[in-house]
Amino acid sequence: MSEPVYQRIRIAEAGSYDGRQVEIAGWLYNLRKSGKICFPQVRDGSGILQCVAVKSALPEELFESLKHLTQESSLIIRGKLRAEPRAPGGFELDVEDATVVQRVSEEHPYPITPKDHGIEFLMDHRHLWLRSRRQHAVLSIRHEVIRAVRDYFDTHGFTLVDTPIFTPAACEGTTTLFGVNYFDDEKVFLTQSGQLYNEATVMAFGKVYTFGPTFRAEKSKTRRHLTEFWMVEPEMAYATLDDVKRVAEEMICFCVDRVLANRREELSVLERDLTKLQAIQPPFPRISYDEAVLALQKKGSEIQWGGDLGGADETLLSEDYDRPVMVDRYPTAIKAFYFEPAPDRPEVALGVDILAPEGYGEIIGGGQRIHDLDLLLQRLEEHHLPREAFDWYVDLRRFGSVPHAGFGMGIERFVTWMCGIDHLREAIAFPRMLYRTRP
Amino acid sequence: MSEPVYQRIRIAEAGSYDGRQVEIAGWLYNLRKSGKICFPQVRDGSGILQCVAVKSALPEELFESLKHLTQESSLIIRGKLRAEPRAPGGFELDVEDATVVQRVSEEHPYPITPKDHGIEFLMDHRHLWLRSRRQHAVLSIRHEVIRAVRDYFDTHGFTLVDTPIFTPAACEGTTTLFGVNYFDDEKVFLTQSGQLYNEATVMAFGKVYTFGPTFRAEKSKTRRHLTEFWMVEPEMAYATLDDVKRVAEEMICFCVDRVLANRREELSVLERDLTKLQAIQPPFPRISYDEAVLALQKKGSEIQWGGDLGGADETLLSEDYDRPVMVDRYPTAIKAFYFEPAPDRPEVALGVDILAPEGYGEIIGGGQRIHDLDLLLQRLEEHHLPREAFDWYVDLRRFGSVPHAGFGMGIERFVTWMCGIDHLREAIAFPRMLYRTRP
Repeated sequence: MSEPVYQRIRIAEAGSYDGRQVEIAGWLYNLRKSGKICFPQVRDGSGILQCVAVKSALPEELFESLKHLTQESSLIIRGKLRAEPRAPGGFELDVEDATVVQRVSEEHPYPITPKDHGIEFLMDHRHLWLRSRRQHAVLSIRHEVIRAVRDYFDTHGFTLVDTPIFTPAACEGTTTLFGVNYFDDEKVFLTQSGQLYNEATVMAFGKVYTFGPTFRAEKSKTRRHLTEFWMVEPEMAYATLDDVKRVAEEMICFCVDRVLANRREELSVLERDLTKLQAIQPPFPRISYDEAVLALQKKGSEIQWGGDLGGADETLLSEDYDRPVMVDRYPTAIKAFYFEPAPDRPEVALGVDILAPEGYGEIIGGGQRIHDLDLLLQRLEEHHLPREAFDWYVDLRRFGSVPHAGFGMGIERFVTWMCGIDHLREAIAFPRMLYRTRP
Repeated sequence: MSEPVYQRIRIAEAGSYDGRQVEIAGWLYNLRKSGKICFPQVRDGSGILQCVAVKSALPEELFESLKHLTQESSLIIRGKLRAEPRAPGGFELDVEDATVVQRVSEEHPYPITPKDHGIEFLMDHRHLWLRSRRQHAVLSIRHEVIRAVRDYFDTHGFTLVDTPIFTPAACEGTTTLFGVNYFDDEKVFLTQSGQLYNEATVMAFGKVYTFGPTFRAEKSKTRRHLTEFWMVEPEMAYATLDDVKRVAEEMICFCVDRVLANRREELSVLERDLTKLQAIQPPFPRISYDEAVLALQKKGSEIQWGGDLGGADETLLSEDYDRPVMVDRYPTAIKAFYFEPAPDRPEVALGVDILAPEGYGEIIGGGQRIHDLDLLLQRLEEHHLPREAFDWYVDLRRFGSVPHAGFGMGIERFVTWMCGIDHLREAIAFPRMLYRTRP
C-alpha cells in the first residue's frame, strides 16, 4: 500500500476537496472529547474546521496527544474531508495523522479563555486576542471595506495620490497636532488630513483620492476617538457640493453591498442584524442644518442655530432614518477656513456631514472648497493663519483655479458601523488611544 | 435650430465619442497658433487633447481669448470630436464654444515653463510640477503598482491588516527613529516596519500584509533615501525562506505585467525601454551571499566575507542579470535579531535581498523569522534589547509558534525602477527628505 499523499489546503478551500485527503496547518481553537473520540477544532486563519479523531483508528500515542492538546497549540493535521451539513462550514475532517508543531505548556497556558475578560486585559493581549472569532471577523470586514473603497475609486476614474504624513504647516492651531522632532531641531507635524494636498494633486489628475493614516492628538476618551486612524479622502475638480453627496452616497452603497455579498459569515459571527445593512439604499435623505436644528429642538435638544451638532445630537437626528442622513449648509462660522460659502447666503457653508444610522454618528465630512483667490486670502487673515505657510496652497487659486470639492471618510467609523460593534478600538488591529500605545 | 447639447466627458474616454459634441473641463497645457487658427492643448488629468479653433468659425472675442490664453488657465471647451490618427491620443476637438474659468494673469504667469528649471525650484513648486506630463506619468505608474500589489495579495489569500504607526518599542537603537511627543511626556516612535506586528497578525490570519507609510530618520542624502516612504510587507505562517522567494518573484512579475499592460502611454512619455521590463520573467536567478562576495571580488570590489553589500556592490552585482537577482543567506552577524539561522550553518541567516536590474538596487528584503522561544530570548539578550518591550513578541513563540516568513518591498524604489528614473523623490507626490519638508 502506497503512502497517502495529503495536499496542503486552507480551510476556506475545503469545498473543492470533498472526499479528498488533505493537510491543514493551523492552531487548536477548541477541543471537545468523549472517551474514545475527540473533536479538535482547528483554525488556520481562513476558517475553522472540526476534526474527528477516533481512538480505534489512530496510534494510541497520537490519539492521546490530540486528546490532551492545549488551546492555541500549533499543529498540522491530515485526514479525509467529508461533507457534513451540520458542521460549521459544512465539512469535517476524519483524522488519519497529525504533527504537533508547538505544544502550549500547561504551566503557561494561553491567557485568553472562553470566560469573560475585562477590556484592559484583552487590549493588553491584543496580539493574541486577534485570533478570536469575533476579532477575526471584524478585521476581515475591515479588509473588505478597504478593498471596496479602493475598488470604487479605482474604477471611477480617480487616481490614488498619497499625501504626506509629515506636514510643515499648522493648519488650525497646534493643539490637536502631534509634533515630530525632525533633523536639527526642525519641527514637523503628523497629518490630520490630506485635503490641502489633494487640492493640489486634483488640479493635476482631475479626480484623486488619498488613503492613509491620519493623526489627532485629542485628549478624548470616547468610544469614537482614536489618536491614529485611517481615512480615505477623494477630491474632484470641476465639482460642487452636489457631486460630493452623489459620490459619497454611491461609494457607501458600493461598500455596504460588498460587505453583504462577501462577508456574510463574519456578519453572522458578529450577530449583525442584516436588515439594517440591507436598508442602506439610495437615495439617502438630505436635510439642511437649519432643518436639523429645528428637528433636534423638537426632540428636546438644547442646540441653537449657530452651534455644532454634538454626538448626542447626531444620534438623536439619525434615529429618524434607516439609512445615512446628509446634513448640509452648516454655519460658515463653525466650519474650517476653506469652505466655500453658499452664493445666495454666505453665512452658511457648502459643506455636508453624513451621519450613519443606529447612532453611529458622523462617518463623512466634506464639501466644496473656496476657489476664489481674494476670498481665500481674506479667510486666511480672518482665521489668523500664517500666509507664508499657505503660499503653495494659495498658488492653486492663481494657476487655473476651478470649483472643486471632496470629502473624508474615517475607516474605523465605517467598519464599526458595518460590524455593529460598540467601540472604534476593535476596528483596527492595534488601536492607539489616549492611554493606549501598547502592544 | 436647437441649441447643441455637449456631453461632459473626460479626455481618456474620447474613443467612445467619435463625431459627437462633447465638453472638456481642464487646463491649458500648451498653445500653438498661426494667424487664423490656433491649437489649444487641453489637459484634464486623464489625458491631453489637441483642440482646433478656427477664427472664421468662432465669435471674434472667443477666438481672441483662446489665442491669448495663458498656460494653466482653466477652461471648459466644447466642440465636435474627430478621429485624427496623427494626433496624440488619436482625436482632435473642433472648437465650437469655450468658457475660460480662471485666466492666469500675464503679470504672474505659471512659473514652470518648457525651459529647464533646477531641481530645487521644481521641488519648491511640487504642488504645480505634478501637472507636468512626466510627473503625471510617474504618479500614474505609482497608482498602477500599488493597485497591482494589493490585487496580488488580495487574490492570493492574504488579509490586509494595517499595523500601527505609533510604536512604543525601540527595535534596534533609536538613532534612525523619529520620536513623537505623545501625551503627558510619553514618547513613542514612528514605525520603521510593520513586521513585528505582522508576526502577531499572521498567527490569526495565516497570511497577512500591511501596506502603509514607514519612517526612517537617516541623515542620508542619496537618491535612494526618503525619510517617509511606503512599504508593503506580507507575512506567511507555516512558511520558509523558499516561500518568500517564490511569492516575491510571483508578485514582482504580476506588477511588472500590469504596468506593461495598462501604462504603455506613461512608459512612452518617460521614454522607458520596454524590453528591459519585458525581460522580467521567472525564474529569477538565485545566488548565495557567498557566491555574491566571490563574484564581487572578481569584479574588483573590496568586499570581504562578513561585510554588507553597499550600493555600489549592488549595482555591480546586478549588472550580470537582466532580471532581479535574489541573494540569500547573509552572515547572521550583520542581520537583525529576528532572522532564523540556517539549520546546517548557523553563521548565515535565512534571509534574502532582491536586487533590481539596471542598478536600481535593493527592492525587497525578507526572510524566515526565529520561531523557537529559547533562541529568540537568547538573541534579544545578545542584541541588548529590552525584554519587557518585547514581551508580547516573545508571547508569539509561546502560544502556537510556527515557522513563518515574510518580506518588505519599498514602493518608491519599485516605482523608480519601473519608470526608469534617477531619483526616488519623483516617485512620491510630496517627498520628504533630510532637507525637504515642503510644500
